[in-house]
Amino acid sequence: MVDFSTIRYVALDADDTLWMNEPIFVKTQDACRDIIDDFITDPKELDEKLYEYEKKNLRLFGYGVKGFVLSMIETVIELSNGKASGSQIQQIIDLGKEMLDHPVHLLETVENSVKVLAEHYTLLCITKGDLFDQENKLARSGIADHFDIVEVVSEKNEQTYTDLLKRHNIPADQFLMAGNSLKSDVLPVLQAGGKAIHIPYHTTWEMEKVSEHQAAGYNYLELGRLSELVDLLRTESQS
Amino acid sequence: MVDFSTIRYVALDADDTLWMNEPIFVKTQDACRDIIDDFITDPKELDEKLYEYEKKNLRLFGYGVKGFVLSMIETVIELSNGKASGSQIQQIIDLGKEMLDHPVHLLETVENSVKVLAEHYTLLCITKGDLFDQENKLARSGIADHFDIVEVVSEKNEQTYTDLLKRHNIPADQFLMAGNSLKSDVLPVLQAGGKAIHIPYHTTWEMEKVSEHQAAGYNYLELGRLSELVDLLRTESQS
Repeated sequence: MVDFSTIRYVALDADDTLWMNEPIFVKTQDACRDIIDDFITDPKELDEKLYEYEKKNLRLFGYGVKGFVLSMIETVIELSNGKASGSQIQQIIDLGKEMLDHPVHLLETVENSVKVLAEHYTLLCITKGDLFDQENKLARSGIADHFDIVEVVSEKNEQTYTDLLKRHNIPADQFLMAGNSLKSDVLPVLQAGGKAIHIPYHTTWEMEKVSEHQAAGYNYLELGRLSELVDLLRTESQS
Repeated sequence: MVDFSTIRYVALDADDTLWMNEPIFVKTQDACRDIIDDFITDPKELDEKLYEYEKKNLRLFGYGVKGFVLSMIETVIELSNGKASGSQIQQIIDLGKEMLDHPVHLLETVENSVKVLAEHYTLLCITKGDLFDQENKLARSGIADHFDIVEVVSEKNEQTYTDLLKRHNIPADQFLMAGNSLKSDVLPVLQAGGKAIHIPYHTTWEMEKVSEHQAAGYNYLELGRLSELVDLLRTESQS
């Protein structure tokens, strides 16, 4: 059993925890595949080459849509042997712009859960990625005002959480993080001494996946949706 | 006269205040012009069209190298009527990667000034742009440890500074900001009730320029280099 009675700070991840995100990347990747259909024989070619570029470029580009678009362009140039046309490259950039302008679709139970959590806890949003894009999405989400602290970070590892807790004078045993990524939202929080809840989303980006082996031995709960966290904390406070 | 005796917090901009930045953009733009030389008749064509794209894309891309590279690609596609080759587009992406990997060149007097300022004040670095890139540059600068607070923000306006001061419990009259941009580092700080020092850099990006008219009536000092700020504050504390 995990004891939640000490929790005073609840932190939520954003992409695929508060709102839909990964499906937009998948949809864009499909559209990119259509654009360069003539240059590939196997649909998987794009996925594999793109993932290769994303991994290679991560050190310089970090996470986010703009780096994804640049990696897509490099992939298309390579797969087409440099034959992709200017208009095809422009279509890919336009796909990226659509992603950045995409309406923010809150996930099931998020709107009310965030409201209730904000009434009882200091509520944080801790999200990884492009500062400008993440701030834009939060601003358009309609739920920004419920968060006491918003942190956009470039990476989510144990050090990130340790530094963040220190910066805000948050004792680790009062801190709970919930998110869809075991790798970013759960394991490093537990390593930093906090508590964590996994709320899986049906689609997970390859780079966020962890093996069962990596997650073994860690003590965390898995819930189906954010409202279950509200219920859980309510039960805890009454027990 | 501006009274600096109340100052307890000194904040510094990063790009073109701590280290060279704008010349890297200018150099890249020159290299891009060479790449598409065959498609343009007047060298100015690239600058004008690129600036047009940068302004138009700012709402979606924000500031930073990755957005700059995407705008360059769009510019080149348009100026070449879609005839730019895959290899030319790849060269432009490679220019962007060189920018992101560029060594950090500290400006004159910065290294020692930052050290001295950190001994006497709570030292902040407040920089606009891409979170990942700015954190990378600071980490590689060799002076990161002198800063008590680092804030990467997506825009620098009055609201940004007001929020930031509130978040860190900094009274506006104890806050001094120094930077190379009147538009981002000086005027909005004065509007937020702080004090500001302008340390101009020889090259200013078009979008950061303000007219004399816009700066008129504001009370700020202009200095030639960061060490002059150290001297000024030292004189103040002795008077």
